[in-house]
Amino acid sequence: MRELQEFVRFPSVSAQPAHARDVAACAAWLADHLRQAGLPTVQIVRTAGHPIVYAAWGSEPERPTMLIYGHYDVQPPDPLREWRAPPFDARIEGGYLHGRGACDDKGQMFAHVKAIESYLHAARRLPVNVRCLFEGEEEIGSASLSAFVERSHDALTADAAVVSDTRMLGRGRPAITYALRGVLGLEIDVQGPQSDLHSGNFGGAVHNPLEALSSLVSSLHDASGRIAVRGFYDRVRACSRREREEMARVAPSDAELLGEAKAPRGWGEPGYTAYERTTIRPCLVVNGIVGGYQGPGAKAVLPARATAKINVRLVPDQHPKEIAALIREHVDRATPATVRTTVRETMAAKPVVIPREHPIMRVAALGYRRGFGAEPAWIRSGGTIPIVNTLQEALGLPTALMGFALPDDRIHAPNERFLLSNFHQGIATSIWTLAGFASLRRAAPRS
Amino acid sequence: MRELQEFVRFPSVSAQPAHARDVAACAAWLADHLRQAGLPTVQIVRTAGHPIVYAAWGSEPERPTMLIYGHYDVQPPDPLREWRAPPFDARIEGGYLHGRGACDDKGQMFAHVKAIESYLHAARRLPVNVRCLFEGEEEIGSASLSAFVERSHDALTADAAVVSDTRMLGRGRPAITYALRGVLGLEIDVQGPQSDLHSGNFGGAVHNPLEALSSLVSSLHDASGRIAVRGFYDRVRACSRREREEMARVAPSDAELLGEAKAPRGWGEPGYTAYERTTIRPCLVVNGIVGGYQGPGAKAVLPARATAKINVRLVPDQHPKEIAALIREHVDRATPATVRTTVRETMAAKPVVIPREHPIMRVAALGYRRGFGAEPAWIRSGGTIPIVNTLQEALGLPTALMGFALPDDRIHAPNERFLLSNFHQGIATSIWTLAGFASLRRAAPRS
Repeated sequence: MRELQEFVRFPSVSAQPAHARDVAACAAWLADHLRQAGLPTVQIVRTAGHPIVYAAWGSEPERPTMLIYGHYDVQPPDPLREWRAPPFDARIEGGYLHGRGACDDKGQMFAHVKAIESYLHAARRLPVNVRCLFEGEEEIGSASLSAFVERSHDALTADAAVVSDTRMLGRGRPAITYALRGVLGLEIDVQGPQSDLHSGNFGGAVHNPLEALSSLVSSLHDASGRIAVRGFYDRVRACSRREREEMARVAPSDAELLGEAKAPRGWGEPGYTAYERTTIRPCLVVNGIVGGYQGPGAKAVLPARATAKINVRLVPDQHPKEIAALIREHVDRATPATVRTTVRETMAAKPVVIPREHPIMRVAALGYRRGFGAEPAWIRSGGTIPIVNTLQEALGLPTALMGFALPDDRIHAPNERFLLSNFHQGIATSIWTLAGFASLRRAAPRS
Repeated sequence: MRELQEFVRFPSVSAQPAHARDVAACAAWLADHLRQAGLPTVQIVRTAGHPIVYAAWGSEPERPTMLIYGHYDVQPPDPLREWRAPPFDARIEGGYLHGRGACDDKGQMFAHVKAIESYLHAARRLPVNVRCLFEGEEEIGSASLSAFVERSHDALTADAAVVSDTRMLGRGRPAITYALRGVLGLEIDVQGPQSDLHSGNFGGAVHNPLEALSSLVSSLHDASGRIAVRGFYDRVRACSRREREEMARVAPSDAELLGEAKAPRGWGEPGYTAYERTTIRPCLVVNGIVGGYQGPGAKAVLPARATAKINVRLVPDQHPKEIAALIREHVDRATPATVRTTVRETMAAKPVVIPREHPIMRVAALGYRRGFGAEPAWIRSGGTIPIVNTLQEALGLPTALMGFALPDDRIHAPNERFLLSNFHQGIATSIWTLAGFASLRRAAPRS
């Protein structure tokens, strides 16, 4: 527990250059810890961005190989004033570990590290070959990791992957996630006058980039909540009636989902439940608008530019590049002659659906039954773990998404936390998954 | 010059609570300086906000009394990264003093302080009674000063006021401003879910307050650039054809005004020139939007709330309270059921037109002729100096707005500056205005 607290205390915020050294220090700490846990091969892989921590145990050809993925980088803690305790204090209270990254993903990935350590301590060996792949760029799109995977097929040869970076349905209700949305990050810049102007002297005669941006943002949805970008839904694969019926049985109801969100009312594309709108349907969310004066009080300024940070979630068979092009066209068409706009791509990852019939899913279910004493549900996630698609496409690896997070763990929000009993049951689940994995057919030798 | 540099070095940013001590220190420095200049009565008046510096010379009933107003508070220097030198360095280069507040208003008001000092040094007395009123809240709406004026009629009894906080038409082209727009500051808050959400997990099912705010902001103007708030223009007094023709002769052309703004194209209410749109017509400008993640890179968040800082400029006979009510109604009507909105008033000041035929205007013109060697033009300003309306309504005082600022002095913007030769010609202009003021008929005694 003390070790997980140490891990959470690193402000490893991958998005912010000012934290680059903290990210590197966190990687070094993690590598040390993996060595102490008894893994014979531990490497810190330098990249164009933040380092990857790679570790391996065993190369016995007759045994299957399990790849464990996690990420040690975290979301920015902003807005800071809404935290009840400093975000990197890693305080334990009420059965929870509190802090940015406690749940997403340090606590969840650390359960696997502790499972390996326990297994090695008790049995002096693991039942399967293990490859650990822990990255520092998940929250910014995993660009360096994707490049590493492409050039490291040998080091990453495995039979299946296990990732814990998803949610359960609630306390004692584990879930295996079999689909993730993709992501496309864009920044729309609107440029008006060459520099900021006095809003009294020029207000009324010069188009305000913030107002032009507001109109652009507003034009991205129609009044019903449907995305109004031409062609946006063209490639969206329809879900079968059978799958939707099954989802309706397992998935949270609209009331439950809005209750978790503490949102006054639902919103979004007509014809779908809230769960469907966050899983089998794409969405477009403005994560932030930057423009003009944002400090306390007032400043009478007409800003020179304004930016919207846009986050699109994609479903099969949408492709990030195609969607980026459609949004660019939309913005170009909607840009008035009084301002200039540019659209910049900041991240991209394809959606993924993992075959539920793959044997790794049986092993994962076994792990949960033993670790949590409950049968896992099959759910989809609205979130994105970019590497899962890469593992599938580049290495042919299916991934069992075995989350230990609760719906109210406030990931990406102030006062993130992680339930300590989930940490301990997660360790047990991981141990049973390692054991069950031994029954998997070993990988076909690669040429 | 060294003294003006010292004055500009105080980061007296009235809008930001973190600078409250700097504002107070600046007031203390100014009071000391007025004492050293030879003014026998100098007081720092504490208020609910920032202090007022009051100074007086003479109470001779047979002489007229001139009230000199200025403000020692400044706009926030944001965005800091766009300054070529730190905003409070007060560097002299290329004939300019550079820094936040150098022009607005420290340099301009200091010309009067230096004129008084010179006069007292040379003649040991002033030709008229003088009352100086220097405040620290002009950039945030002058609330404390208005209250002070209401309760201090005796200390402020005068025949006319002189204020230097406006622009000339260009180098060597002085101007007397005879009309100011009023101002109404509002903050529109949109509240959605109770706290920030993960935009992957909830995107598509919960209305994003930033997107709702964008639509609200977008609804405030129609496509032509006219304000779309019902009843907004009802009280706008039409300008006579004669006045518009005269303006067309004196005022900057659209090309000149947009050239100053370095804006690619004009924009705004149809049927008016750019100058008219910034002077005889009202406007509504969003000074800033605060919501979601504003740091570098990305953060996958659906924010709990979003705020727009709105700055409305008013013309006769619009009243801030009435306009605030109309905008509230508009926002209420336009708020969808999925979010809650509130509208908060942050500042208010009425527009003002000063009679051009008042004798003080003749005196001001004389001052400029002697100080700058040029006949001043008569112009309107799109900006606001809240106290000018208060002086007129509460004390019956007309104000000569004798600016020493140039159109490209970048007030309210990064790299603000003040032309040193305007500072010196401003001092000369002030000296001649003091001298000319002696010919004014003295104030009728007040009961």
